[in-house]
Amino acid sequence: MKIIDGGITAPQGFYAAGVACGLKKNGQPDLALIASDRPASVAGVFTRNVVKGHSLQLAREHIRNGLARAVVINSGNANACVGQPGLDDARTMAALVAHRIGCPIEQVLTGSTGVIGKRLDMNAVSSGIDAAYASLAESDESAHLAERAIMTTDLIPKERVVRFQLDGREITVAGMAKGSGMIHPNMATMISVITTDCAVEPAVLQQSLTAAVNKTFNRVSVDGDTSVCDMVIVLANGAAGNTLLTQTSDGTHLLAQAIELVSTELSRLIARDGEGATKLVEVQVNGAASSDDAYKIVLAVAKSPLVKTAIFGEDANWGRVLTAAGYSGADFNPDGCDIYLGNLKVCEKGCALLFDEVLAKQILQQKDILIRIELSEGVASDRMWTCDFSYDYVRINGSYRT
Amino acid sequence: MKIIDGGITAPQGFYAAGVACGLKKNGQPDLALIASDRPASVAGVFTRNVVKGHSLQLAREHIRNGLARAVVINSGNANACVGQPGLDDARTMAALVAHRIGCPIEQVLTGSTGVIGKRLDMNAVSSGIDAAYASLAESDESAHLAERAIMTTDLIPKERVVRFQLDGREITVAGMAKGSGMIHPNMATMISVITTDCAVEPAVLQQSLTAAVNKTFNRVSVDGDTSVCDMVIVLANGAAGNTLLTQTSDGTHLLAQAIELVSTELSRLIARDGEGATKLVEVQVNGAASSDDAYKIVLAVAKSPLVKTAIFGEDANWGRVLTAAGYSGADFNPDGCDIYLGNLKVCEKGCALLFDEVLAKQILQQKDILIRIELSEGVASDRMWTCDFSYDYVRINGSYRT
Repeated sequence: MKIIDGGITAPQGFYAAGVACGLKKNGQPDLALIASDRPASVAGVFTRNVVKGHSLQLAREHIRNGLARAVVINSGNANACVGQPGLDDARTMAALVAHRIGCPIEQVLTGSTGVIGKRLDMNAVSSGIDAAYASLAESDESAHLAERAIMTTDLIPKERVVRFQLDGREITVAGMAKGSGMIHPNMATMISVITTDCAVEPAVLQQSLTAAVNKTFNRVSVDGDTSVCDMVIVLANGAAGNTLLTQTSDGTHLLAQAIELVSTELSRLIARDGEGATKLVEVQVNGAASSDDAYKIVLAVAKSPLVKTAIFGEDANWGRVLTAAGYSGADFNPDGCDIYLGNLKVCEKGCALLFDEVLAKQILQQKDILIRIELSEGVASDRMWTCDFSYDYVRINGSYRT
Repeated sequence: MKIIDGGITAPQGFYAAGVACGLKKNGQPDLALIASDRPASVAGVFTRNVVKGHSLQLAREHIRNGLARAVVINSGNANACVGQPGLDDARTMAALVAHRIGCPIEQVLTGSTGVIGKRLDMNAVSSGIDAAYASLAESDESAHLAERAIMTTDLIPKERVVRFQLDGREITVAGMAKGSGMIHPNMATMISVITTDCAVEPAVLQQSLTAAVNKTFNRVSVDGDTSVCDMVIVLANGAAGNTLLTQTSDGTHLLAQAIELVSTELSRLIARDGEGATKLVEVQVNGAASSDDAYKIVLAVAKSPLVKTAIFGEDANWGRVLTAAGYSGADFNPDGCDIYLGNLKVCEKGCALLFDEVLAKQILQQKDILIRIELSEGVASDRMWTCDFSYDYVRINGSYRT
């Protein structure tokens, strides 16, 4: 299993386009279209927010068929909280794409991300779909354009491709994602599309995706907010020609591994690109009494604004890490807790250590920071990615809507 | 029941002092002593963090006796996470005060706030206790000095005095508090001392305090972090000469009301003084299906960094309010949700309204912002205070330890 260059069109039979149709005021690409040359098995994971965007609601409905030909996603407008007209607009988006592609409307999945509470400009969307369809291509460049078209406050594009062998066939799994603010477990303002040319049953694909999302996209926290438009969708079109993977196939775990690898890479890119972020932070917990306790601790530490501002300030303030673990709701004895920054132990058995401040500073000056918490309760562990909290986070989010 | 000027020494029989003993590098007051001229009934509420500061642990132990003569609190050092020596230092602090006052050590309560993981400089503390004891006085000025001596990143002192009549006696309840960052339900880096000259049984005092804290101090969120040193303590010395209040006394509810009023005022001051705050924000929910749902929603909205940065940017981004309510875990139908900024309705039945943007801007330019969420699920309501999230929060917390 290896990581290779490329984008969402790397698997066979996938085409992409990204165009600017005027939804973003700055003229950047804002409509992405991804199409498969044949119906693909499809699976998805959606936000658990009780408020749900209209485009996402439609995608959730369509995905139940298990087959899809295309995904259309706009940025610049979330198509959320505008009532029935929003659902009508999502249906129109899907219908326009279905008409172009020549497939049932149920085989088109819709997504939107951006400002909440404003109607979509359907003239712009309609001409955008026409232009995107006309420019659909298999090239890396068109994949990159599709990625750019789903970005909002993202600074870096997020694409990863993984390739492995199965039955002597070459299988490719590719993913693209957007998301920087509002990222949090249970699918924050995060949209990801994964494509693969593997032949696989929809139910098996769903299992692999759900397992991967729980370990990856649901282990990213930028600011603790979760949005109404978040989803991860995977399309598997079988163009690689392998024998269809079912529950009992030997190769199923390989596909699951590849989907998890792509998801891990994309998740780390999302955390690194957190709004205003200057550092990628991984929070690890080992030795917890239960998985639930381990999760509570990584979640509390990764969310803590005090921990995140200390990392921004390159300040080895491990007291804030211990404090966050302490209020996480997890049950543990602080007297059995060690804390490490990178490989430097800064707290032993819940107490301050006289550590090398110069070395600590060097560790915190890196772009990748590891905070490791070792408990002595049991064997459960977990990890989560987050980023530091900077002036720029406040600047970016103080005036997003206007 | 009226609010009057003054500080912690306003009730009869209370003395206070605040001195600088060198724990704060900048030479500001850092040790507060509050004493009653007779043993007072005492009650307290303490952090639920599983990590607990050593001074707080000792106060929790001593408070079980139901009687106290003095409270000694230092700032600049949290006396936390240093192991057995920290508990020994807290005992020494209590013993030094007990020796001066002439009371059992169990009647002295200790508190500390500041940096975690460093031993207290006990030479400084010892000379500070001597100096504080020597300057104990009933004056407003000494009360203000005591308040200043418990402040850390606080910018404004927090003191309130309430007076009411009972049995023809004048009863005074006074409170002081510190806390600006790390403020969150379940007692964040927040210390408050309340004094009253009312005569009341300790158990009744505890009930009144617990009820008041749940509605007030536990309804403040600045950044979602909760600390290891947080406590609210109340001393009631009976110097007003009223008949001892018991469970069944008519006057008990008046005392409870006064304690709640002082606590409300102090809580609002804490939110207003949130680190880097420029605005006090009250989040209200009405019409929730249950108290638990109402609490989940005010908590999620008050904690949301995206809501808090939007308020800082004076941006009427109600979509973030609805989004936070949506992921709060509360069960509600978004189609029955109205949102108001002040008295301006900005969202109706979960949908965008065309509201007056100029008026919205005027409302958001105020120093006091009300966000009101009206559900149509039931009759439960709740409210929480928070503040906006500014550049200064990041600046203050990026380099607190060093």
